[in-house]
Amino acid sequence: MSSVPRRRRSRRQPLEAATDAIQDAFGPRTRAHATVPLLDEESIEKIHQAALQLLANTGIRVLHDQARSIMAEHGAAVDESTQIVRFDPALIESCIKTIPSEFTLHARNDAHSVVLGNGTMVNAVVASAPNCSDTDRGRRAGNHEDFKNFLRLGQYHNIMHVFGAYPVEPVDIHASVRHLDCVYDFLTLSDKAYSIYALGETRVMDALEMTRIGHGLSWDEFKSRACVFTVINTNSPLQLDIPMMQGVYDMARHGQPVVVTPFTLAGAMAPVTIAGAITLQNAEALAALAFSQMVNPGAPAVYGGFTSNVDMKSGSPAFGTPEYIKAQLISGQLARRYGIPFRTSNVCAANTVDAQAAYESTIALWGAVNSGGHLLMHGAGWLEGGLCASYEKFILDVDLLQMIAEMNKPVSVSDEDLALEAIAEVGPGGHYFGVEHTQQRYRSAFYAPVLSDWRNFESWQEAGSPTAIDKANSEWKKRLEQYQEPPLDDAVRAELDDFVARRKSEGGVATDF
Amino acid sequence: MSSVPRRRRSRRQPLEAATDAIQDAFGPRTRAHATVPLLDEESIEKIHQAALQLLANTGIRVLHDQARSIMAEHGAAVDESTQIVRFDPALIESCIKTIPSEFTLHARNDAHSVVLGNGTMVNAVVASAPNCSDTDRGRRAGNHEDFKNFLRLGQYHNIMHVFGAYPVEPVDIHASVRHLDCVYDFLTLSDKAYSIYALGETRVMDALEMTRIGHGLSWDEFKSRACVFTVINTNSPLQLDIPMMQGVYDMARHGQPVVVTPFTLAGAMAPVTIAGAITLQNAEALAALAFSQMVNPGAPAVYGGFTSNVDMKSGSPAFGTPEYIKAQLISGQLARRYGIPFRTSNVCAANTVDAQAAYESTIALWGAVNSGGHLLMHGAGWLEGGLCASYEKFILDVDLLQMIAEMNKPVSVSDEDLALEAIAEVGPGGHYFGVEHTQQRYRSAFYAPVLSDWRNFESWQEAGSPTAIDKANSEWKKRLEQYQEPPLDDAVRAELDDFVARRKSEGGVATDF
Repeated sequence: MSSVPRRRRSRRQPLEAATDAIQDAFGPRTRAHATVPLLDEESIEKIHQAALQLLANTGIRVLHDQARSIMAEHGAAVDESTQIVRFDPALIESCIKTIPSEFTLHARNDAHSVVLGNGTMVNAVVASAPNCSDTDRGRRAGNHEDFKNFLRLGQYHNIMHVFGAYPVEPVDIHASVRHLDCVYDFLTLSDKAYSIYALGETRVMDALEMTRIGHGLSWDEFKSRACVFTVINTNSPLQLDIPMMQGVYDMARHGQPVVVTPFTLAGAMAPVTIAGAITLQNAEALAALAFSQMVNPGAPAVYGGFTSNVDMKSGSPAFGTPEYIKAQLISGQLARRYGIPFRTSNVCAANTVDAQAAYESTIALWGAVNSGGHLLMHGAGWLEGGLCASYEKFILDVDLLQMIAEMNKPVSVSDEDLALEAIAEVGPGGHYFGVEHTQQRYRSAFYAPVLSDWRNFESWQEAGSPTAIDKANSEWKKRLEQYQEPPLDDAVRAELDDFVARRKSEGGVATDF
Repeated sequence: MSSVPRRRRSRRQPLEAATDAIQDAFGPRTRAHATVPLLDEESIEKIHQAALQLLANTGIRVLHDQARSIMAEHGAAVDESTQIVRFDPALIESCIKTIPSEFTLHARNDAHSVVLGNGTMVNAVVASAPNCSDTDRGRRAGNHEDFKNFLRLGQYHNIMHVFGAYPVEPVDIHASVRHLDCVYDFLTLSDKAYSIYALGETRVMDALEMTRIGHGLSWDEFKSRACVFTVINTNSPLQLDIPMMQGVYDMARHGQPVVVTPFTLAGAMAPVTIAGAITLQNAEALAALAFSQMVNPGAPAVYGGFTSNVDMKSGSPAFGTPEYIKAQLISGQLARRYGIPFRTSNVCAANTVDAQAAYESTIALWGAVNSGGHLLMHGAGWLEGGLCASYEKFILDVDLLQMIAEMNKPVSVSDEDLALEAIAEVGPGGHYFGVEHTQQRYRSAFYAPVLSDWRNFESWQEAGSPTAIDKANSEWKKRLEQYQEPPLDDAVRAELDDFVARRKSEGGVATDF
């Protein structure tokens, strides 16, 4: 087979850029098989009812004054002395009914818009890592250059569909203006959709304004078109803080989607049982989701599941565990029961891109696919339980996500694909390398992995016994070099430049440092 | 959480041996969720019909004279000049109907007997590797000492249920007597069930006799009790060779199960399309399975799927690929359509225990679970596409299989597990470390992985940045040390000793070297 030429580029080349890497065109693939339930419907109903009871009896603390007022206006019982809000089950049920079961998240390049809530999984780049690393330079604090590199890698790879907030925190930009530079980068280095941080009204409004400019929309148009999302992590257990609720408020009233994701680690911030941790997750998610609908009925929203467990010896969070996959499957069932798009994550707790990183992430992806995940946060690059964005892990994850996309390509059972004629032609004891049936198809028949080294042991050893992390290291550098900045209308760029300059001259957002 | 003591051994200690490792008791777990179909029933039917057509029109070459005679007696059309046998679809359909949908594979220690074909997955140790390796001593040819070590590791681990033939080929034992020593080792170093090679009638009959002695059964009792199995790989495409058919004949007439597994690599020995490769697999499997029932209607048998793809650049076989998982899902559907237990495998093509080994194996296991695999061959230890049995990979796989078993533990939604009282007790903003609900459960709440290193980056780096393969290396040595030989009745051992001595004195099996 050594004479078989490399797969021709033309078959898999992305539409938008000339690259050496072989990629399918942009676009999430329809799941090839049904989602997998773990619990029966009665058990799902029991968890739902337990969460409603919890919100009715124990209630949830809401630190944001206006949010409590809005909740009270809608009939919730507010205890101002404790800031505890209790919800009648019927109130929650009626609020979450108005959440759309699917919506389009628009990118400024509409070819990169995605639908959340249909039969596809939308992959987001790693978000919010304080550190980043590669095997050449080691681990370092997040910074602007690495931030931009991860944006470039996210833009470059067709399998990455959106950005889930800052891949790595650029701590070398002052917090007062960081959001201005980062959203500017999102809009100029990439043309895919992205997520912003809900860190106070000013930052959110700056980001919405910039996004509106980037999309070339009026405010009215913007409000009826989801263009940017935010992720709200509740302060588990049972607490909704001020920036979070402000974020839900600001996003919802502008028609932009919120992803509500309780951070319920079983055994730490949540009960040690999976059923208990999910019940808490569900109660917190329902409360914040219901609030989004009180602000703006019909505003797009996503049900986030992040329940995992901790190592009971050390308290360390664990990811990609059997408990994590169970929680994913049940969370997916709950989201489907509510008819709300479901967010899950590609996570691991490994400190390097070794076998552990691979099996934890693959297990998390297994759960993401089987649970019917619609939005996969931290799709590529997440290491160390989220404390590090890794360049090599990014490439590993791209490979895994491409494999999942490949799994989702339909298997044709046409007469030609059943190949009875070819089988008769080859007959007993022959081989298929040279036959016409193979020659017509071999170039695009199989997925060509980025990392897998399929040489025999002797050739591999002669080549210096490279491991997957070595290949990943050379790949990200090659791909970063091949990145091309997407076009942006000059007038739009000028308007963004002006906006950022003006807001910087105003000092951005006041900080106490 | 540093004050939390290590999980108490008493909760998870195996019943049969004192060990340091925390293991659940022996026994395959019931699958927690439904199997996942990839194709609709109509497409499955199309593949079935295509395979029947193939057997009716193109036929299959059968090199074994007696097998052809038996097939002819049952109504197959035999062309003696080409050795091609063609089967009427009705003949195949009627033969495979008598295959039992499930059966018990008995171990000589009945506590280690397993059921094949019910809702559980039976895990087998890696089989038939010509080489073995560990990171201390590197890679070497298979030999008797390593053979015995893998038997010890298989016996030690409760998650390993059976042996799938020789884990590594002990080439330092002469082929004339190798089977005598190896079956003797299976029966003395372990008390779990195992598989033998179909390498001619004499070897098979020696192995059956030894197994009968090991189980303390008369021949009549033995024939009605599955105690040992063999795996038959067809010579794809469309050929059934002499030792194979002899093996089906000898095993079936003694009521012992055969696992029929065509080795259909799409693009090499099978069509380049998944549908074509599966059609070929299905035809070959059906022919050999039907033959087993001609020999002995009702004899236990297993439908094996091994379809994968090759790297079209080099011709190297690939494993744990998107194509592999598709083939698993479809093969599982076909086996369910026939009501025959389904065999699949835990495979990878990596040359070392790096990220590639982990993701390829985890993808294969994902497919094994979702396809409803009943027998997982090469469950632990397989590396290099089967050319090497790795000690470190064995530990990685044990960890993965234990995680799958953990995934299959039911999630209780009892009121106590929903934890509404504990959630009310902790209230908003607290944590669950110290509450009674946690204290009562934390020791056994979560799976404790063998390899995962969940320390934070700084502690991990201080410890020398160990990767998963390093931990696996220390683990297999510890576990091998903890292995204990299972008891064996003195009279049985003496009878086995006598048998082996006699057969060795007779020269074992004649070879030409």
